[in-house]
Amino acid sequence: MGKEIPTRQEDYSLWYNELVKKADLAEHSDVRGCMVIKPYGYSIWEKMQQALDKMFKDTGHTNAYFPLFVPKSLFEAEEQNAEGFAKECAIVTHYRLKNDPQRPGKLMVDPEAKLEEELVVRPTSEAIIWSTYKKWIQSYRDLPLLINQWANVVRWEMRTRLFLRTAEFLWQEGHTAHATADEAVKETVQMLNVYADFAENFMAMPVIRGRKSEGERFPGAVDTYCIEAMMQDGKALQAGTSHFLGQNFAKAFNVQFASREGKLEHVWGTSWGVSTRLMGALIMAHSDDDGLILPPKLAPIHVVIVPIFKTDDEQKRISAKADELAASLRNQGLSVKFDNRDTHKPGFKFAEWELKGVPVRIAMGPRDLENGTVEIARRDTKEKKTIRMDEVSSAIPSLLTDIQRNIYDRSKKFRDEKTTEVNSYDEFKKVLDEKGGFVSAHWDGTIETEQAIKEDTKATIRCIPLDAREEAGKCVYSGKASSSRVLFARAY
Amino acid sequence: MGKEIPTRQEDYSLWYNELVKKADLAEHSDVRGCMVIKPYGYSIWEKMQQALDKMFKDTGHTNAYFPLFVPKSLFEAEEQNAEGFAKECAIVTHYRLKNDPQRPGKLMVDPEAKLEEELVVRPTSEAIIWSTYKKWIQSYRDLPLLINQWANVVRWEMRTRLFLRTAEFLWQEGHTAHATADEAVKETVQMLNVYADFAENFMAMPVIRGRKSEGERFPGAVDTYCIEAMMQDGKALQAGTSHFLGQNFAKAFNVQFASREGKLEHVWGTSWGVSTRLMGALIMAHSDDDGLILPPKLAPIHVVIVPIFKTDDEQKRISAKADELAASLRNQGLSVKFDNRDTHKPGFKFAEWELKGVPVRIAMGPRDLENGTVEIARRDTKEKKTIRMDEVSSAIPSLLTDIQRNIYDRSKKFRDEKTTEVNSYDEFKKVLDEKGGFVSAHWDGTIETEQAIKEDTKATIRCIPLDAREEAGKCVYSGKASSSRVLFARAY
Repeated sequence: MGKEIPTRQEDYSLWYNELVKKADLAEHSDVRGCMVIKPYGYSIWEKMQQALDKMFKDTGHTNAYFPLFVPKSLFEAEEQNAEGFAKECAIVTHYRLKNDPQRPGKLMVDPEAKLEEELVVRPTSEAIIWSTYKKWIQSYRDLPLLINQWANVVRWEMRTRLFLRTAEFLWQEGHTAHATADEAVKETVQMLNVYADFAENFMAMPVIRGRKSEGERFPGAVDTYCIEAMMQDGKALQAGTSHFLGQNFAKAFNVQFASREGKLEHVWGTSWGVSTRLMGALIMAHSDDDGLILPPKLAPIHVVIVPIFKTDDEQKRISAKADELAASLRNQGLSVKFDNRDTHKPGFKFAEWELKGVPVRIAMGPRDLENGTVEIARRDTKEKKTIRMDEVSSAIPSLLTDIQRNIYDRSKKFRDEKTTEVNSYDEFKKVLDEKGGFVSAHWDGTIETEQAIKEDTKATIRCIPLDAREEAGKCVYSGKASSSRVLFARAY
Repeated sequence: MGKEIPTRQEDYSLWYNELVKKADLAEHSDVRGCMVIKPYGYSIWEKMQQALDKMFKDTGHTNAYFPLFVPKSLFEAEEQNAEGFAKECAIVTHYRLKNDPQRPGKLMVDPEAKLEEELVVRPTSEAIIWSTYKKWIQSYRDLPLLINQWANVVRWEMRTRLFLRTAEFLWQEGHTAHATADEAVKETVQMLNVYADFAENFMAMPVIRGRKSEGERFPGAVDTYCIEAMMQDGKALQAGTSHFLGQNFAKAFNVQFASREGKLEHVWGTSWGVSTRLMGALIMAHSDDDGLILPPKLAPIHVVIVPIFKTDDEQKRISAKADELAASLRNQGLSVKFDNRDTHKPGFKFAEWELKGVPVRIAMGPRDLENGTVEIARRDTKEKKTIRMDEVSSAIPSLLTDIQRNIYDRSKKFRDEKTTEVNSYDEFKKVLDEKGGFVSAHWDGTIETEQAIKEDTKATIRCIPLDAREEAGKCVYSGKASSSRVLFARAY
């Protein structure tokens, strides 16, 4: 069918790249490091957006929009944040093109139109947002301020991969302001839980909730919480982060409020975000050598109906029945595609919809028509069975629920199997190299050890799990005392 | 109440600016010409987006996402388009900041990180999209290609106004490709009709559908269609455009397809867009000296309930009843705000919700409780009446329908009154200066006359109405023959 992709075994990385392109999710653009999100890929992102947006609103947040550009003087106000992003910023320096006298019909940057102050294309919006919050917050009555933004951001990455790491990406970024540290920490954890809930219940992707070590913290944050997922090649993927910013940005931008007691105090902040990177996670968490496997809750098409016919008359009779079936499924809120093309054979269509990860396929041939049956195939297990046509519309919703659960269970089982406790550095390295996955090990809590291990093995501390139990032990690297295990892994 | 705005009579322009800020719709940011869209303003924009997005999908379009940046060599490929936007482009020239040795803790653009080719921040996306379509289109089977994008764009305007003209704005841009000119023209007109439908039925804003004269055409288009609305100060506002691009972009980017007959042909294109400018139109079309008047179909809050109480006991008893009422209205899909703040008086709340344009206000006091009544006030006419509490939930939906219709009818009446046929240039100028509005006049069809009139009067040809009737006449400026009238106006 001309759309074959390599197997995961052959070349996991190439499998991923080809799958993203062949399933019409995204492709590289003519702009270095920037992607085009194709309609089918974008329709999955829209489903993600809708679910997340509802969760944000249900927890009291509203959307707003802040400028794409950040004047350099604002950008550099919070020094840690600025330093963290300075090396990967797109900078606007001019505001006009003019005709190039050397090349008729062509344009050049007009040197007369140089900006007095350069503008940074936002890599994240804390600076521009906190400089605005300064105007909005005077009193405790203005707090909490609970705002989210859906936007594009730019980080000039040198090595890019579709969805996982691109120069421009789409995301949401929540930015909240609070009267007390305690309330801000609660917000940070609440949003971490929203992300975990979304990852597990919509993406069917189990995640570990944890805190980042100092070395992996967001620049400008006091504490970074994250959800970490395990991909099929044994590498970890950070799927969302939620930051407790302390008073860092409030101090950098002088955002103070009059407390109930009439005292002027600096505001406490949080920020939290997930991005189109989740698309990469979704693809890598579940898909197989035949293509995408989409959890029904995020699938743009739930059911595809493929007719099997030889004659025009057969096509006509099957179409009538298929239309009826499609209508009854749509009445239940399902998205149904009837692939009635007469330019392609059923085998081609089967492969195409498998590649695109449609959870359920219904095939209908002339014999089905005679017998009053259809063949149902589920994408996740490839199981097929023949059922009575009048049972279809009641069978499909529970089948979709079952697929959603099965994909999650399978990923969870895989993740658990790929999580290994080790007690020596030799074991640590052996597991990393031979098995991959999460390596649960004691660590002495120092950034020096973290960096030495990273340089030696390319594994990083993914997180200090929130549910880590107290356990006396010794750091696998330094032998120093440790009171609980952390999770290491090689990561995307 | 500290939120007063000037009257329209006093200073229409200041009235608009203050209303936008005081009603929490938008404000200027720390970035020249860029605005912050505040939560309340953004929630109206979200309502617009949802309605439009559904209309686009119902007409067969899907969403996708293309890069923010356009390499200069692509940008200049379609010369008319490039020339049209060259003078107002933000240009990215560098991709890194570094520590400024002169100013410890501060940053400077790293001269080592200069891009080989400059990137234009998209002012519109034809260039980047058609360079992508080249890869997607080979055969007539790939057509039509019907794609829309929701995105931010940047046009470096020198004189900016909130929503109406900002350096960065949010919009949607549809970009379609077709096998025949006829099909592309049909698409162009279809989307014009979608925009007119949206303007009239959601925004309650009557519009004239027409074609632009050559002088007002989109750079790179063969034909530009538009919808034109009339603001309360007698100035016109272009509310949406739909362009028939002919084969201009297909030729510039060499996008060809093999026809059914196997011949290679250039593709035919359209593009169409509306932006956050519609927010400005919505505000100016309906609002009064007390604030916003929102059509119910776009109002984030349909009904506000304001309790009137003196004692805690009264507040408690009214709240119980108000909660009940709110629940019954929400069950009908309405958005209800119960303004139970005890920090503000009813009069303050009345003024605040009038400022914010909430269509219906319900007031409930102790006497209402005794009598089983409430007072209902509609925002559009300020009429109040007292009705029985048990009638409220059935009365509100039809009241909202009535308000939606009334706002439209009022605007339509105003627009019709502000449309004047003139037959001489003296009359033309007199009407423009004394009455404003649309001036319907004969024009000789030349760009010279159009420009001469513009220089002389600041009026431009808003459009050649699609429903203009054949009528022999003489150009008001040149006296040359003309076969139908066009609409002139001073415009935003």
